[in-house]
Amino acid sequence: MARRIIGIDPGLTRCGVGIIDVAAGRKLRFVHVSVIQTHADQELSERLRIIGDGLEAVLDEFAPGAMALERVFAEQRNLNTVMGVAQISGIALREAALRDISTQLHTPSEVKAAVTGYGRAEKAQVGEMVRRLLGLKEAPKPADAADALALAICAAWQTPVSSARSASRLHGSAAAERVAAPTKAQEAWLAAERAAKSRGRRLG
Amino acid sequence: MARRIIGIDPGLTRCGVGIIDVAAGRKLRFVHVSVIQTHADQELSERLRIIGDGLEAVLDEFAPGAMALERVFAEQRNLNTVMGVAQISGIALREAALRDISTQLHTPSEVKAAVTGYGRAEKAQVGEMVRRLLGLKEAPKPADAADALALAICAAWQTPVSSARSASRLHGSAAAERVAAPTKAQEAWLAAERAAKSRGRRLG
Repeated sequence: MARRIIGIDPGLTRCGVGIIDVAAGRKLRFVHVSVIQTHADQELSERLRIIGDGLEAVLDEFAPGAMALERVFAEQRNLNTVMGVAQISGIALREAALRDISTQLHTPSEVKAAVTGYGRAEKAQVGEMVRRLLGLKEAPKPADAADALALAICAAWQTPVSSARSASRLHGSAAAERVAAPTKAQEAWLAAERAAKSRGRRLG
Repeated sequence: MARRIIGIDPGLTRCGVGIIDVAAGRKLRFVHVSVIQTHADQELSERLRIIGDGLEAVLDEFAPGAMALERVFAEQRNLNTVMGVAQISGIALREAALRDISTQLHTPSEVKAAVTGYGRAEKAQVGEMVRRLLGLKEAPKPADAADALALAICAAWQTPVSSARSASRLHGSAAAERVAAPTKAQEAWLAAERAAKSRGRRLG
């Protein structure tokens, strides 16, 4: 039975939403991607209403069992952006609890390390790896769409890999040829995870 | 016809909710106060669900026409707290838009200046002024409850006062005797408002 995971990349102007299924052997299947958009000249409450309604519609249609969201650190970027991200994540987390969807938070570097093997990868590299890992013809655009799918992939691989054998299955055969060696990616991901943990769960 | 205003002081552990009616002549009437509580050992999504459901219940019961929320500046305090505040404010603002409730955001110093005449007033002073302005027997407790009512009062007085005569009506007769002179309070409030505006609408 496949696990269905929704990744949400929250932003007031563009909120990326990506859904994947994870089957036995951690095989990934693309299900859905979309971007909910609002405009800076709309009232903040109205922007949050549009985004909340959009998220509810996707949750109703695809009924995921798990939700992955960006873990926000206020240091990491523009404060204005951070507040919008936190406001949207509050709405998304509440909707998850209302539907018994489990939730997990990942830092941007965890997500990048999970899909590219490198915690500081460029946007284009993340998009290209998402394309390969999900067997898509083109990288999802805009970047917010690719980031939402990358979050879902990161969450799919969250369970620690216990052996080299399962690690080698990690990226799937189609992607393996041009991917950084799975063990390397896995190491980078674990290092990012440890770093995030040692910083503590400072921010929700 | 009285305007009904809900003030929300968002916090994950204690979320204060206060409701007042504002009649002609800016006369204030206490309607409701409560605190929604969650525990640090609960999942973040579950805490946000409890708070969101609690806010919805109050909005359904009292049907306010306006909502006042704290405007968050990430500099102003513990980052962990700021993220929780932003997550709850996102949920509250969305619910406001879903019900056609107008929203306004006020900084803590605006609120303190509005009820005490001094932007850096202590918690106890805010509680005492809320008690007097609403004609309550005791100051609402905990401080989150008093702060929610103070937010609603600040929003009630948001419309600039154009004459000394209306300014003298501002605090009502019962409260006037031990209150800083209304013009002084009004000046402090306008100064706080100007300061907030000159900082720009950096954060939602």
